[in-house]
Amino acid sequence: MSDVARADGARVLADLNALRAIGAHKTGVHKPTFSDPHLRSLEWLAAHLPDAGLSATIDGIGNVIGRSAKAGRKLLAGSHLESQNYAGWLDGPLGVVYALEAARVLNPDPSVKGAVEVASWCDEEGHFGSFLGSRSYVGGVTETDIDAARDRNADRSMREALRSVGLDGRARITAERGRHIGYFEAHIEQGDHLEGSGLKVGIVTSIVGIWQYRITLTGEQNHAGTTRMAIRKDAGLALAKFCVAIDDSFPAICGPRTVWTTGRITLDPGAPSIIPGRAEMLFQIRDVDPAAIEHLEAKLRSMAAEASHTGRCSVAIERIRTGAPAVMDPGFQDAIEAASAACAGGRSVRMPSAAGHDAQVLATIMPAAMLFVPSIGGVSHHWTENTADADIVTGAEVFVETCRRLLSG
Amino acid sequence: MSDVARADGARVLADLNALRAIGAHKTGVHKPTFSDPHLRSLEWLAAHLPDAGLSATIDGIGNVIGRSAKAGRKLLAGSHLESQNYAGWLDGPLGVVYALEAARVLNPDPSVKGAVEVASWCDEEGHFGSFLGSRSYVGGVTETDIDAARDRNADRSMREALRSVGLDGRARITAERGRHIGYFEAHIEQGDHLEGSGLKVGIVTSIVGIWQYRITLTGEQNHAGTTRMAIRKDAGLALAKFCVAIDDSFPAICGPRTVWTTGRITLDPGAPSIIPGRAEMLFQIRDVDPAAIEHLEAKLRSMAAEASHTGRCSVAIERIRTGAPAVMDPGFQDAIEAASAACAGGRSVRMPSAAGHDAQVLATIMPAAMLFVPSIGGVSHHWTENTADADIVTGAEVFVETCRRLLSG
Repeated sequence: MSDVARADGARVLADLNALRAIGAHKTGVHKPTFSDPHLRSLEWLAAHLPDAGLSATIDGIGNVIGRSAKAGRKLLAGSHLESQNYAGWLDGPLGVVYALEAARVLNPDPSVKGAVEVASWCDEEGHFGSFLGSRSYVGGVTETDIDAARDRNADRSMREALRSVGLDGRARITAERGRHIGYFEAHIEQGDHLEGSGLKVGIVTSIVGIWQYRITLTGEQNHAGTTRMAIRKDAGLALAKFCVAIDDSFPAICGPRTVWTTGRITLDPGAPSIIPGRAEMLFQIRDVDPAAIEHLEAKLRSMAAEASHTGRCSVAIERIRTGAPAVMDPGFQDAIEAASAACAGGRSVRMPSAAGHDAQVLATIMPAAMLFVPSIGGVSHHWTENTADADIVTGAEVFVETCRRLLSG
Repeated sequence: MSDVARADGARVLADLNALRAIGAHKTGVHKPTFSDPHLRSLEWLAAHLPDAGLSATIDGIGNVIGRSAKAGRKLLAGSHLESQNYAGWLDGPLGVVYALEAARVLNPDPSVKGAVEVASWCDEEGHFGSFLGSRSYVGGVTETDIDAARDRNADRSMREALRSVGLDGRARITAERGRHIGYFEAHIEQGDHLEGSGLKVGIVTSIVGIWQYRITLTGEQNHAGTTRMAIRKDAGLALAKFCVAIDDSFPAICGPRTVWTTGRITLDPGAPSIIPGRAEMLFQIRDVDPAAIEHLEAKLRSMAAEASHTGRCSVAIERIRTGAPAVMDPGFQDAIEAASAACAGGRSVRMPSAAGHDAQVLATIMPAAMLFVPSIGGVSHHWTENTADADIVTGAEVFVETCRRLLSG
């Protein structure tokens, strides 16, 4: 073994393309959680883990865990294999294949006093809930939670989905406390910061908090022909005005990296000839600083109170998710930086992650770290998502070298 | 027979309540087209038509037609029996029961030289399309149209729905040219004009035109965390702004009774963590004057062009329905006015209908007329829709007397 661990770039690209061929959609993939292409991807991984000296288990929630019998330190590494609907080929598989590659390079090497263990966390993309796979591993998911989780793509529970793919009834693997020195995950940046700065590696300092809201506007359902404009209480129009009011008022009071999004709007009953009596929007705020989110939430609530008071419809704000920010381990960040200096000409930068990742869940029970590679044009959650092959290979080299340094202590 | 035909008010109320008991939802009903309660309502009518000396047929599109063998003039009268989802008890059944009552009172009376024939038009509420039942009767629906019509409540075609209720394969009855002196339909006002003016009868002068649009906004789908606010092309936000712009600009250029409504909004892909790349709204404009609608459409198109030019998303306007206004027969209007003078103390007013009705379809092949009764609070398309019992009875008396006058010529 030389001073620097060497990832096999061609093997990494071949593996990623093999996973892209399962459930291919244009240049991306369509692999919702527990779809046939997702299951075949899990089986693909389970079949390749023995190449890295790992025993493979697909557990009762669809996590794939590869375990090593080698003595010494153990580093847990991985990501996820399902995708958003009709989305990109790297979001998830990149981190899994990097972890597999690190295990293949380092585990057979007797000069490395320890092993990389590989994990694929089920449903990071949230088809059924919020990080159910990694949360199950850290002990945060009950059987009741699984019964209650619903498929956002189809009318079925997670329990029914598990049954349909033959995983219901299997044990769920949970973390063995003290087994791992930490968790390491690679991912595409999903933004344009690295590309715009000519950098190759992002060293994640913290993962944003995500607070999510259900905003409900209540007016009066009525006939779209016979109800004069002057007396309407149109909940859909009130919702549109509320969206525009947010867009007008948030920029002046938000932080430098705060983002907010209305991802879904539903008008009830949703018929062309009926004035909607009720309208609902799913709204999300992200920031690494909880105080910044709290400030915006207070503004949101005062805007809702004002709109209810002065407008024709009432506005109710319900916070339905409070995802705390997660700080990444400083020692692990130093190791990524040193590996970047050795393998990527030091073209790295420390930066927060604006997306949520399983690493934030693992960070609740062990030191955790993340490495980003550039995203072309910053595109994400779309089938055109991509990263240059050369950047994928450089990322793999930095990832494997980081693992070597962490296992060397 | 006296000079004035006498409706049996208690019988009318009993019949309406019997129909309300089929598919009851709170104080209203839930009877989507071809649901079990809808079918049972059609059978209820078919079973009662012989009481009025009419032979009953439920035809191959779910229209119920009662025909008389009596010599002399024939007046066609009716409405519909299905409802909007979870909607009111009178929207439809009122006109059917008034027609049935007129037939029961007038057809056996030898002093009346003619008969009322009764029709219930299928799917006036548009679960499968636009006035498919009455349009079938006037010869405007092909078998291909039926194959293409889809259930807005379920994933099935109208053909499949007809098959499931055993109506597929039956002949569809079409109008026998020259058989009828005209068509007469009663309905609740669905607005608050009669109630607010202390009037009992609305004499419809014309039925509004309804022009419907699909407005599509196209931006760029991206990740809701990693995409900075400054570079987003959020189609959902662009849609909200477009709705507000319509609300700002239409009032200054619309007619005195113009109404416009956004009934449905869809964001694509509709996930909480994805910036919508595409957003769609169903938008409708109604007016009795087509020139007024044309003027607003021109404004809509210029707003779309401007938003596409200056904003971050493109806006496309597609007109998907052009429903021409229908003028009601002046002689029939005079007959309703005379009957109102005789039975309702003259508390009637001539007014346009802002809602679409089967009468506008029948008006394309014969003289047509409509009578409105007051709606409490103007509520419509909601289960709280209602009319005072006394007003229902007064309306029935005016309706039957109008039929008598029309048959007397």
